[in-house]
Amino acid sequence: MITVGIVGATGYTGVELLRLLAPRQDVEIAVVTSRELCGTAVSKRFPNLRGHIDLDFVAPDAEAVGACDVVFFATPHAVAMDSVGALIEAGVRVIDLSADFRIQDVGLWERWYNTTHSCPDLIATAVYGLPEVNRKQIQSAQLIAVPGCYPTAIQLGFLPLLQQQLVDCSRLIADAKSGVSGAGRKAVEDYLLCEATESIRAYAMSGHRHHPEITQGLSQYAEAAVGLTFVPHLTPMIRGILATLYAPVKTGTEVSIEQLQSIFEDRYKGEPFVEVLPQGELPATRDVKASNNCTISVNYYADTDTIVVLAAIDNLVKGASGQAIQNMNIMFQLEETAGLEAIALLP
Amino acid sequence: MITVGIVGATGYTGVELLRLLAPRQDVEIAVVTSRELCGTAVSKRFPNLRGHIDLDFVAPDAEAVGACDVVFFATPHAVAMDSVGALIEAGVRVIDLSADFRIQDVGLWERWYNTTHSCPDLIATAVYGLPEVNRKQIQSAQLIAVPGCYPTAIQLGFLPLLQQQLVDCSRLIADAKSGVSGAGRKAVEDYLLCEATESIRAYAMSGHRHHPEITQGLSQYAEAAVGLTFVPHLTPMIRGILATLYAPVKTGTEVSIEQLQSIFEDRYKGEPFVEVLPQGELPATRDVKASNNCTISVNYYADTDTIVVLAAIDNLVKGASGQAIQNMNIMFQLEETAGLEAIALLP
Amino acid sequence: MITVGIVGATGYTGVELLRLLAPRQDVEIAVVTSRELCGTAVSKRFPNLRGHIDLDFVAPDAEAVGACDVVFFATPHAVAMDSVGALIEAGVRVIDLSADFRIQDVGLWERWYNTTHSCPDLIATAVYGLPEVNRKQIQSAQLIAVPGCYPTAIQLGFLPLLQQQLVDCSRLIADAKSGVSGAGRKAVEDYLLCEATESIRAYAMSGHRHHPEITQGLSQYAEAAVGLTFVPHLTPMIRGILATLYAPVKTGTEVSIEQLQSIFEDRYKGEPFVEVLPQGELPATRDVKASNNCTISVNYYADTDTIVVLAAIDNLVKGASGQAIQNMNIMFQLEETAGLEAIALLP
Amino acid sequence: MITVGIVGATGYTGVELLRLLAPRQDVEIAVVTSRELCGTAVSKRFPNLRGHIDLDFVAPDAEAVGACDVVFFATPHAVAMDSVGALIEAGVRVIDLSADFRIQDVGLWERWYNTTHSCPDLIATAVYGLPEVNRKQIQSAQLIAVPGCYPTAIQLGFLPLLQQQLVDCSRLIADAKSGVSGAGRKAVEDYLLCEATESIRAYAMSGHRHHPEITQGLSQYAEAAVGLTFVPHLTPMIRGILATLYAPVKTGTEVSIEQLQSIFEDRYKGEPFVEVLPQGELPATRDVKASNNCTISVNYYADTDTIVVLAAIDNLVKGASGQAIQNMNIMFQLEETAGLEAIALLP
Repeated sequence: MITVGIVGATGYTGVELLRLLAPRQDVEIAVVTSRELCGTAVSKRFPNLRGHIDLDFVAPDAEAVGACDVVFFATPHAVAMDSVGALIEAGVRVIDLSADFRIQDVGLWERWYNTTHSCPDLIATAVYGLPEVNRKQIQSAQLIAVPGCYPTAIQLGFLPLLQQQLVDCSRLIADAKSGVSGAGRKAVEDYLLCEATESIRAYAMSGHRHHPEITQGLSQYAEAAVGLTFVPHLTPMIRGILATLYAPVKTGTEVSIEQLQSIFEDRYKGEPFVEVLPQGELPATRDVKASNNCTISVNYYADTDTIVVLAAIDNLVKGASGQAIQNMNIMFQLEETAGLEAIALLP
Repeated sequence: MITVGIVGATGYTGVELLRLLAPRQDVEIAVVTSRELCGTAVSKRFPNLRGHIDLDFVAPDAEAVGACDVVFFATPHAVAMDSVGALIEAGVRVIDLSADFRIQDVGLWERWYNTTHSCPDLIATAVYGLPEVNRKQIQSAQLIAVPGCYPTAIQLGFLPLLQQQLVDCSRLIADAKSGVSGAGRKAVEDYLLCEATESIRAYAMSGHRHHPEITQGLSQYAEAAVGLTFVPHLTPMIRGILATLYAPVKTGTEVSIEQLQSIFEDRYKGEPFVEVLPQGELPATRDVKASNNCTISVNYYADTDTIVVLAAIDNLVKGASGQAIQNMNIMFQLEETAGLEAIALLP
Repeated sequence: MITVGIVGATGYTGVELLRLLAPRQDVEIAVVTSRELCGTAVSKRFPNLRGHIDLDFVAPDAEAVGACDVVFFATPHAVAMDSVGALIEAGVRVIDLSADFRIQDVGLWERWYNTTHSCPDLIATAVYGLPEVNRKQIQSAQLIAVPGCYPTAIQLGFLPLLQQQLVDCSRLIADAKSGVSGAGRKAVEDYLLCEATESIRAYAMSGHRHHPEITQGLSQYAEAAVGLTFVPHLTPMIRGILATLYAPVKTGTEVSIEQLQSIFEDRYKGEPFVEVLPQGELPATRDVKASNNCTISVNYYADTDTIVVLAAIDNLVKGASGQAIQNMNIMFQLEETAGLEAIALLP
Repeated sequence: MITVGIVGATGYTGVELLRLLAPRQDVEIAVVTSRELCGTAVSKRFPNLRGHIDLDFVAPDAEAVGACDVVFFATPHAVAMDSVGALIEAGVRVIDLSADFRIQDVGLWERWYNTTHSCPDLIATAVYGLPEVNRKQIQSAQLIAVPGCYPTAIQLGFLPLLQQQLVDCSRLIADAKSGVSGAGRKAVEDYLLCEATESIRAYAMSGHRHHPEITQGLSQYAEAAVGLTFVPHLTPMIRGILATLYAPVKTGTEVSIEQLQSIFEDRYKGEPFVEVLPQGELPATRDVKASNNCTISVNYYADTDTIVVLAAIDNLVKGASGQAIQNMNIMFQLEETAGLEAIALLP
């Protein structure tokens, strides 16, 4: 039995962790914290959990947190960094869903997040929790930085192309479409139903915080600096990310769709949560709703010598809480798919 | 008073023509045809028109059609081509919202539409009804080919860049997001609410029929062959197209955002329905809902030396029926904005 | 030319007033106020108004307000009451979209709104702006209390039954479904897209502030006290109210559907914005979207001797800003339908 | 290991059965039929099942069907009745999700369904599969008629009131709101996204086929004939039914909200899938999305002496496939909640 704590569990990644962990026999949710809702029943905040979670929110500094085997941080950025050090010293393993430990270059992180990092030393010890890349390191990690939602879809989509050195990495394009739950459960005017439904728009054209995280990963896979134009779009739906990825084929390189299909299938063979679709089938975000899957389609436009990859995930599952649990399973030598086998909800 | 006929008015572009034309004092809707609903009240099909249109659908071969000053075809492709010849001979001006006269290369049209064109001679006489490009020719045209919805947004977005020879036209990318009304009012499973809402997906990856129409226009503006990767996406909303356009700056050319902004503002100065947004503002499809506007934002990514243009329209208005009426206004020397001044519906 | 001021125009009823008034030749929007956005361009807040309204928000106490012919209050409750007195004294006519002057019984108002009314004397002078009932009094009114959205649909639906004394008024039921825009443009968690879409729920079961307003009207039409069970529901859409109204036929009374249909048609004959549907047709909120229409269907269940009336409106138009303008038209001896003829947007 | 067949599995109740059954260790899905898609992979029709179901659709008359322990019919009405007899004779237990065996009065069924029943003798042997009422009979049933979606929500909501003889059953009202998936996956114009989203409307005012099924149940619980006004509404969302139920208190009877709350809590104590909410909390369909729960709130309006019950279910789970599986669990002496413990998906 693994005892689990969840810090800052009042948002959508919090409830999703609880939804996925509560039914498990091998996990005990010991403590759920919220500074704001301290003393309130968790199921009062999340009626779907009534009868499944019989806990009240407690203050985040509760001793109980330090007694867990593993603690998930479902907090905004710049919160986890203040608590993680003590927990790790106490032997607790930490899985951080926020951005605090995702970027290895502290200065870069501090510029994008406009904050001084309070425990820069720990960053180097953190493992970037993308199992398809870092499975081995995750096993023994004390501290996991769970990838962001856009970074998950975009990295998984570009990865095989970059590792095979097929494309000109100076002009990659990621046109990504996200459901509104990516913005969290914050009372912000822009995300009101009347503002966000029946409309689509791009945002963060001057720079999105996921940009340095994505390029850090892509550069590593390409073993070279990459140039990425990243345009996120707010899409009128609750869940889902679809990343439409454009990569020009490297000058002098010839590719065929059969070869591309093989490269993707080979790269992801055996991966429990990445599915390369047969040629001609295209991912829709609905096909992964509420599941931990990432579905990918690779396409080739001969006219423009451009490869187009489509990658779909549920931003709250493979893009956040599901992936966090996948990391936990690996860290604790459990079946990697434990608690994550649920089939996508259709319709 | 201009007498108007509408052929095939049972779909969304049909009802939109009626909605926009019915309140006008200078237009008389004389005849509305539908083979299928012949004899049914128009307002039975479209309850929003009750009290505004007091006509029954008649058969499309009705003599009344030939007595109109102008006839709109809101039919599927390969229908208008069979009737336009006779109408024009009878002195009727024709505005075709379908694809029959959009592509000048007959062979190309026949391949994409998998049909033999029944009046290829008329194609050369047709004017492509994009007023921002062909205003003069529209004035005297007998036959207008109204641009498709994607082509309108994509051409207006790329136009200034191509005319200024700023970008490498061999690798243009158009990532376009369309509401479901673009698929028309056809009882097709894919467009059921339960199939299309709460999800986004790309489609037509192997080629969309708007592709040759778009490249025909772009090549003309660039005065060179263009290579375009075009990926349309089905977006969970009724109305709207957002085109996110990516163009690599031509090697050896330097651009600045101020210069780009000026180029766009200069190109569209005085255009009643194209609005170049101030730097930092981005279009959302909701801001043009039910209006004939196209809003455009130009952006520059120095890191990748890539220009990103965003263009938003209502696919049923500027992308179809509104633009058709804009053409009619020009053809009949009316105020170009007549009947099209309505402010977008927000929220 | 009527000069118009709008106080508190940052919400949905504000932008709707502006959308409907801006295109008019006979109206000049002289001043638009907002304490919060003072100094900001109106079109910055509402991008749909760019090019249509070239004003900045000013402070609500601006002198310009007092110089208008008519001032609309699009404020939350308990705001207008502090300013209306001075305006009326200055000869300005006032149309209040808030609840401040809707309820004649001051004590009742104060209990429901939990506030002391600051100008109780003016209440008696206010005319309840439901033109279908009070057209004559509206003509000469200095102060109009525009009915609430639910009250408009529910009163128009029940009115003919009550005036004809056909039903047992002690057990009326109004099951009403409203789009989310009824909650206004407030950054409240409950109205986030992720909270409100893909779900329906009842709310305010312990009492909704529109309840006393509705029963005040119904009692007047019935010339007797009425008992009303009113259950509002938050419906996952932007605009629209559908009221499903249940009334038991009075004991000893016999009714037929033909008779009911006639009663409704007679009552609303000549009303420009109330449409009694033919037997067998049912209203959908989409059929009145963005229009000032109220569509009504009357039905009879012989088995349970119950009459069921369905009434649909756009809550922001006939349920608020459209009706406010209808009042203005009547007050200023303009065509009652001026600026309100727009056809509903479908789809 | 229970071997299962599913007949007619191409619609939403079919895929939902598969989603819920596929992960189970104690169930083997042996055969999935479709006349139309015979030979197609099930996962081609339902991409969410890829990797979970490795079967092709077969013809419905396949021998394999007769070899199953239990067969689910997810067919339109008037299909199961032709096959059930032979299956039962072969010792197969049958769970019919269609309407063929729900109504005991054959003549009544034939009038509403406008069809001659092909095996009227079997009707009397069928058990109405509402476990909260018929748990014992279900255990030994050979043939289960799974209740319809509206009937499930409405009966569970009214049941305690009727059994306690608290209300005047001659004037019950059920105002029910259903998501569009209740209409099935049929290519019908009315259920297109562009027709059904952003709108609400009542339908079937002249009589809905669930009406006789509901009154059959209610009359049984009341031990008296009931009069029910039932108005279903098409609500712009995929899943969910909210039933708002109105019942006048019987003359001479006094009720209090505390007493009502107790009655409901007592009636459903121990029921695994019915949850009576605490006073003051109200059900939203989102809180039961994708779960087998029915949440109920009871309310009392003293002014009109009317009880208002709210009941929410997911129409595809507790309203169809989940309830069918709950029946299977009971029939085969499995844990009643097996495979149905999933927590509702929020958001």
